[in-house]
Amino acid sequence: MKPATISTLTLLAAWAVACTARAADPLPSWNDGAAKNSILQFVAKVTTEGSPDFVKPSERIAVFDNDGTLWAEQPIYFQFLFALDRVKTLAPQHPEWKTTEPFASLLKGDMKSVAAGGERAIGAINMAAHAGMTSEEFHKIAADWIATAKHPKTGRLLTEMVYQPMLELLAYLRTSGFKTFIVSGGGIEFMRPWSEKVYGIPPEQVIGSSIKTKFELRDGMPVLVRLPELNFMDDGPGKPVGIQMHIGRRPLAAFGNSDGDLQMLQWTAAGNGPRFCLYVHHTDAQREWAYDRDSMIGRFDKGLDEAQRRGWTIVDMKTDWKRVFVFEGR
Amino acid sequence: MKPATISTLTLLAAWAVACTARAADPLPSWNDGAAKNSILQFVAKVTTEGSPDFVKPSERIAVFDNDGTLWAEQPIYFQFLFALDRVKTLAPQHPEWKTTEPFASLLKGDMKSVAAGGERAIGAINMAAHAGMTSEEFHKIAADWIATAKHPKTGRLLTEMVYQPMLELLAYLRTSGFKTFIVSGGGIEFMRPWSEKVYGIPPEQVIGSSIKTKFELRDGMPVLVRLPELNFMDDGPGKPVGIQMHIGRRPLAAFGNSDGDLQMLQWTAAGNGPRFCLYVHHTDAQREWAYDRDSMIGRFDKGLDEAQRRGWTIVDMKTDWKRVFVFEGR
Repeated sequence: MKPATISTLTLLAAWAVACTARAADPLPSWNDGAAKNSILQFVAKVTTEGSPDFVKPSERIAVFDNDGTLWAEQPIYFQFLFALDRVKTLAPQHPEWKTTEPFASLLKGDMKSVAAGGERAIGAINMAAHAGMTSEEFHKIAADWIATAKHPKTGRLLTEMVYQPMLELLAYLRTSGFKTFIVSGGGIEFMRPWSEKVYGIPPEQVIGSSIKTKFELRDGMPVLVRLPELNFMDDGPGKPVGIQMHIGRRPLAAFGNSDGDLQMLQWTAAGNGPRFCLYVHHTDAQREWAYDRDSMIGRFDKGLDEAQRRGWTIVDMKTDWKRVFVFEGR
Repeated sequence: MKPATISTLTLLAAWAVACTARAADPLPSWNDGAAKNSILQFVAKVTTEGSPDFVKPSERIAVFDNDGTLWAEQPIYFQFLFALDRVKTLAPQHPEWKTTEPFASLLKGDMKSVAAGGERAIGAINMAAHAGMTSEEFHKIAADWIATAKHPKTGRLLTEMVYQPMLELLAYLRTSGFKTFIVSGGGIEFMRPWSEKVYGIPPEQVIGSSIKTKFELRDGMPVLVRLPELNFMDDGPGKPVGIQMHIGRRPLAAFGNSDGDLQMLQWTAAGNGPRFCLYVHHTDAQREWAYDRDSMIGRFDKGLDEAQRRGWTIVDMKTDWKRVFVFEGR
């Protein structure tokens, strides 16, 4: 290569660097403050070559809870709305449901009686909605449902009930060489049909709860049949188990919002070298919901104590986020 | 940008393309023939933009069996050599093994009696070797073992008993925008400590059989304890289940060598659009081993019939591979 060419390239490179330095704030929906700074500082620390805290890209694993961390979870987990809708859709094929609980109450709209059935009622509804079809059929059912499903309070598409600041954080981490994963108590196959479009997270980077499946040849055509039997519960102490099973290495950074994420954050924090743990605290009753220690959904009690004691980043949604949902300001 | 700069860059780009066109054969250890051609043609077809068979990079998933497909599996699965060594190492801590089968026979070197114990004996040895420690401890045990473990016949490191043509194929697929996964009946955590170094496949792209693990806090320190209980068997009909669980989309290409891979190939072949299925046939008793329909290890019977009937690519190791192992020609 001629020296003249080299100097042209050097100039171009310098110009590119200058452009990046002048680039827009990677987290424009975050107010300046301790939470935002802790993110920026951590990313700078682990991505600066030559720094003692530098982490090679292959080890930059970031794990995110979904419900209450990437999208809302009030007044009830969105996947349960799916299950309710699904049971209503299937009801004509199940005349026996008219006289079988919890289906009878559900179909009458008597949610109080459904709730009185507790875990068992919820489990029966979930299995009716999620099992009994092939994996491909379920993919289509979930994709079709999420395409139009709206939030009971805001009337927005559920895929718009996503936190804009967290989308920016996901993109910022990926730009910084991180591989981003979802680690959710929600159903793995419920999230996969839309996780790439909504979060930029491909199906192979989604970890979640699952039911068992079985390989079968139907008229010579291979299918995976979804069985009404729990395979794995990716919540609480299950989250580190799911992370090890799917990723096989410890995350560098973990993001959650409830006690169900605590073990994931503990597992992340216990790794060697720099680690980053962040909790989203739902403090904004105006723009979103305010709940923590006493909430049935997304209880944040032990996690809040431990985050405070250990100095993990706690996002105060009300003060730290300029904008909450993706639909705001559109 | 000045026109002069643009023309410099254009020249550089043209020069780079010319270099690539002149680049070496991506599969130099493969003899020219039907098998090699089928690979090159498939990759060209799905990666040529504008082609009706073009597949976007995110959908370019390639899955590889490990034992007998990426590395050898004779005279016995290498992971079982690990289990045998591990039991010998642990024997001083288990005086009761002197009088308990299959350990007593194993420690006396009486492998005939061990074999007579069948699946149950093998299971007991495997559980003794693989369970009872934390995930981190096991990672180190497996990594330390593989660093020096040698093949009983060739005396080569096991990590050199890897097929050079398959390494080239893995690299070629990755260069062509594919994401490469291992889908093995072997233990997921046995493979992960070395899969990246040996195959260029990171831990999160390794799928395998597993035992259950349990999250615990030990003196406040989180650990994952490996339990002596099967979690998932990633073999035969389990392979499509494992693929769906970990990847969540159907592979575009699948590579195996035995009947245990048949369902994985069927599942792959049944996808829409172009798909590629390849079987490695062990036909070379001189350089490797020759076995198929009657072998206890890596039986290739139903798979061979189906591959022939459906026109899948069958690699005749003897005639299709110029070089077999990575250590040859070094």
